[in-house]
Amino acid sequence: MEYTTQTQVDGEFDAVVERTVDALEDAGFGILSDIDVQTTFEKKLDEEFRQYRILGACNPGLARQGLDADIELGALLPCNVVVYESDDGDVVVSAVDPERLLGVADDSDLDAVAQDAADRFDRALGDL
Amino acid sequence: MEYTTQTQVDGEFDAVVERTVDALEDAGFGILSDIDVQTTFEKKLDEEFRQYRILGACNPGLARQGLDADIELGALLPCNVVVYESDDGDVVVSAVDPERLLGVADDSDLDAVAQDAADRFDRALGDL
Repeated sequence: MEYTTQTQVDGEFDAVVERTVDALEDAGFGILSDIDVQTTFEKKLDEEFRQYRILGACNPGLARQGLDADIELGALLPCNVVVYESDDGDVVVSAVDPERLLGVADDSDLDAVAQDAADRFDRALGDL
Repeated sequence: MEYTTQTQVDGEFDAVVERTVDALEDAGFGILSDIDVQTTFEKKLDEEFRQYRILGACNPGLARQGLDADIELGALLPCNVVVYESDDGDVVVSAVDPERLLGVADDSDLDAVAQDAADRFDRALGDL
């Protein structure tokens, strides 16, 4: 079963990352982490890798609701959106499915939070 | 079912965060993200919250193996370790269970990676 929602986006890699950040912000997310996987692998492993960024997206109100329901929930947050080069050189933007991710906590109190985050990701990816 | 492994640690909050980072590094993890939830909620929601940090821990070699098996896997990475104040003022360090987290991808090629990460977390938390 798929655990992400993907869309292919035309444009240069860095420009797509910028547009993704803008679209996430318009949908109510802040970007709390931004990991450059290519640079990390180059530095730590001395290995080449495709361009690949992991953006940690967080809607503060939803995160607060989630943590009030389950104080351990930070172990699953934020919800990531990755931007990477596909094998044939296209740029793919892929958001984790918040319902699959928060499903790990197996707590029905989180269902509405996950659904709200999923709706916001759909809106953000639809804007790209 | 639990999706984290927790340990209670004596000491001041900031000192425990530092010791946690050191223990994770000794176990082969780099800290690729560090989210201060208390400060985020204060700034974005104007709401008070307990001290709460989300550390994104990544062993580059394991991450590389995981991404080679499933290019979407970045949507679930890094594996988080949270440090927070409990309701009674103790400091809790809690690591996500990598087998539960990567289980979302439902790919047996990731089993060895998840097991290796879990063993490293056990070692790091045991050192605290």
